[in-house]
Amino acid sequence: MTYGSPALRRAVLLANQRIPLAKLAQLTWGNVSGIDREAGLYVIKPSGVAYDDLTEDDLVPVDLATGKVLDGDLRPSVDSESHRAFYLAWPSIGGVTHTHSTNAVAFAQADLDIPVLGTTHADTFDGPVPVTRGLTPEECATDYELNTGRVIVERIGDDEAAAGMPAALVANHGPFTWGATPMKSVENGIILEAVAEMAIKTLALNPAATTPQHLQERHFKRKHGPGAYYGNPPK
Amino acid sequence: MTYGSPALRRAVLLANQRIPLAKLAQLTWGNVSGIDREAGLYVIKPSGVAYDDLTEDDLVPVDLATGKVLDGDLRPSVDSESHRAFYLAWPSIGGVTHTHSTNAVAFAQADLDIPVLGTTHADTFDGPVPVTRGLTPEECATDYELNTGRVIVERIGDDEAAAGMPAALVANHGPFTWGATPMKSVENGIILEAVAEMAIKTLALNPAATTPQHLQERHFKRKHGPGAYYGNPPK
Amino acid sequence: MTYGSPALRRAVLLANQRIPLAKLAQLTWGNVSGIDREAGLYVIKPSGVAYDDLTEDDLVPVDLATGKVLDGDLRPSVDSESHRAFYLAWPSIGGVTHTHSTNAVAFAQADLDIPVLGTTHADTFDGPVPVTRGLTPEECATDYELNTGRVIVERIGDDEAAAGMPAALVANHGPFTWGATPMKSVENGIILEAVAEMAIKTLALNPAATTPQHLQERHFKRKHGPGAYYGNPPK
Amino acid sequence: MTYGSPALRRAVLLANQRIPLAKLAQLTWGNVSGIDREAGLYVIKPSGVAYDDLTEDDLVPVDLATGKVLDGDLRPSVDSESHRAFYLAWPSIGGVTHTHSTNAVAFAQADLDIPVLGTTHADTFDGPVPVTRGLTPEECATDYELNTGRVIVERIGDDEAAAGMPAALVANHGPFTWGATPMKSVENGIILEAVAEMAIKTLALNPAATTPQHLQERHFKRKHGPGAYYGNPPK
Repeated sequence: MTYGSPALRRAVLLANQRIPLAKLAQLTWGNVSGIDREAGLYVIKPSGVAYDDLTEDDLVPVDLATGKVLDGDLRPSVDSESHRAFYLAWPSIGGVTHTHSTNAVAFAQADLDIPVLGTTHADTFDGPVPVTRGLTPEECATDYELNTGRVIVERIGDDEAAAGMPAALVANHGPFTWGATPMKSVENGIILEAVAEMAIKTLALNPAATTPQHLQERHFKRKHGPGAYYGNPPK
Repeated sequence: MTYGSPALRRAVLLANQRIPLAKLAQLTWGNVSGIDREAGLYVIKPSGVAYDDLTEDDLVPVDLATGKVLDGDLRPSVDSESHRAFYLAWPSIGGVTHTHSTNAVAFAQADLDIPVLGTTHADTFDGPVPVTRGLTPEECATDYELNTGRVIVERIGDDEAAAGMPAALVANHGPFTWGATPMKSVENGIILEAVAEMAIKTLALNPAATTPQHLQERHFKRKHGPGAYYGNPPK
Repeated sequence: MTYGSPALRRAVLLANQRIPLAKLAQLTWGNVSGIDREAGLYVIKPSGVAYDDLTEDDLVPVDLATGKVLDGDLRPSVDSESHRAFYLAWPSIGGVTHTHSTNAVAFAQADLDIPVLGTTHADTFDGPVPVTRGLTPEECATDYELNTGRVIVERIGDDEAAAGMPAALVANHGPFTWGATPMKSVENGIILEAVAEMAIKTLALNPAATTPQHLQERHFKRKHGPGAYYGNPPK
Repeated sequence: MTYGSPALRRAVLLANQRIPLAKLAQLTWGNVSGIDREAGLYVIKPSGVAYDDLTEDDLVPVDLATGKVLDGDLRPSVDSESHRAFYLAWPSIGGVTHTHSTNAVAFAQADLDIPVLGTTHADTFDGPVPVTRGLTPEECATDYELNTGRVIVERIGDDEAAAGMPAALVANHGPFTWGATPMKSVENGIILEAVAEMAIKTLALNPAATTPQHLQERHFKRKHGPGAYYGNPPK
């Protein structure tokens, strides 16, 4: 445990344990990481380990610059290189989450953006949640997981864009979310799944459903930016 | 805690805690308030506080006449002004609940009233549960939350109408419910969500489903008004 | 507690408590009764009492011949007269359950029988689960609950038919189920809800889905009648 | 307990108890078995016993060659002969699971293969999960359960094929899954149900959804075969 501070390991463990609590994935699926920018490393769930068995010591520290494991015997999540792509592209984010939550996966598999159908969506996502283009055979053949991260970054844009849209769907795969902390990235995964479920039901009732732009803006700005007035300081 | 009696705070706390128990909202979403008409104030959940952390002391007392916070450091729910609009319009109600429950939100986002498809609905709601008109850009720009309350009052009508229809859906947003007590307003939220889920499934099976008027009336009157014969006195 | 033996009260209490455990109804909705044929009475849940508060003493004994309460201060479930109609029509049954389970209600509200789409259905129900005709305005106006029971009996037929089809859907209302014991009647409610959910999803995938008659028969007879070979004696 | 080692009985008990935990079946439905190839027997859940009551002693040892019960007073699951057909056909498998999980049953009842719509599916199943042909009246009349196993083997193919496709849907009935151990066979049942639910929702959003072949292959090979790089050794 030379790499990855106890505080970071604790935060990443708690965030990972939230995945099964929030029913965002089955079995060992899903993973959360958190970054220590000063140390130039991130800590991530090991591959294929059950959430019930997971300890702080099991978490895998990875070098941000090279993607190499810094310590221990366990392999990191196979999605580690996707996480790394996000940390390299977006300096403001502190945590990344990948899940296979049912309704978000359904949009990814249907190759459809999640449209803005109401304020639950607009409170967190500043526009439709985008689905990426599919990876080419070449991108699948070599550096697949890094390329997965790259097509998301390509679709989302720069650091500021990533703050306004903390989620994306990989075509025919599933959701990645991010946030200021590991736990915030999981919470964005929870919100994404709730919004996706609402959207599927809304579209079943009314395939032409939309939301006025002025309502979307009001809600996003109620929670984000200089005029935000939602929330209280943490206890 | 100069404002808001211990009994009122207790009732509002218990009603708020029922929201996550009944799975009516994710994270910190949703809020319940309760009113003390004699004192001219209502007590409401603070904005953005997790239900697990919520205590009676955290609840925010608000002046009914002005909407100003009477006590403490916490900001009230951003929806406080919507609650206030209901308390001002309808003297008989004692509690108000706002949630983002999935199936009710789906109808709100689809911009569709929940039609009366059976007795589960008719036992509580005396007609279709209405969706409001959308707010104009002007209504969104200034006093947004108060205007949200106003379009509901505009759609529901007077105190007697609010007793027969203790729920409304804000277009592209979600449900508000009310009742004689804070807990009754949450229970109406639970019923609304159950009824909305049944309606989505019913319409998937039969888009032309309806219910005869005489059956609706029988069920509503079985539980409400002078001839009601449902229930027993509380223990 | 002069009426209704402790054993019967115990069986009816446990069966009622299974309704919220199996998520077959919200709040105080739903009710189970059990009969003592020798004593000419049945015991039923009181109206509008929460399941968490329910005790054996709260259960209401009702005279089978007259429908009158035999003992205590509590009113029986408003559906008591429907239960009575079943006990009078079908001498073999020992328990009756009424719920508002979501998927069964959806078929009732859609005014559609639940078709036999597979062996899960055929294991318990010897044909489509029928929805009743709607009650006339006259049947709603007087003796509504007794008439509800009567239209079910009219639709199901005699005692032998009720053994092969231990469930019916009241149009625009919801399911009633019955069985040899109170608990068996709840279990038939659990099965009915599972079968209804499967049917809704099946019809969404393939509106023309059917099941061959020879498969239906094999499964029903595997569990019922002289050649049955499912199960073991209770421990 | 002359037959079936304590270790095998323990593994089969734990795997059976996972069925209700993972909500793959109601009541006493579903069953798991595990095999001891050296002893030429498998151990299976007894028919119609509640999961809460199940002990290691209740499990029924069955002779692999003849299908006869080797020990004890309890009848094996009615599906025992289907399990036996799999063990005879596929030497590599160590456990078999049958459930009535809702979404997998929906595909079976709709008489539709589960198409490969994304990586969640491709991680485990090397192609569409197939639905069998229906059994003929003759196959239903005699040796029904053995014939059920046979039509699955007919549809899946040899041992190698069964390793790449550890699941099948019996037309108008439901899923069987298998794996290297009893618990792995249940986990394949959990994955199958998750994948089926995702597929139903995906097809509701986009009936023409598909997945590129190169993405499917990448994901299947990431977890299976010589180049696999998913997971870590168990603790």
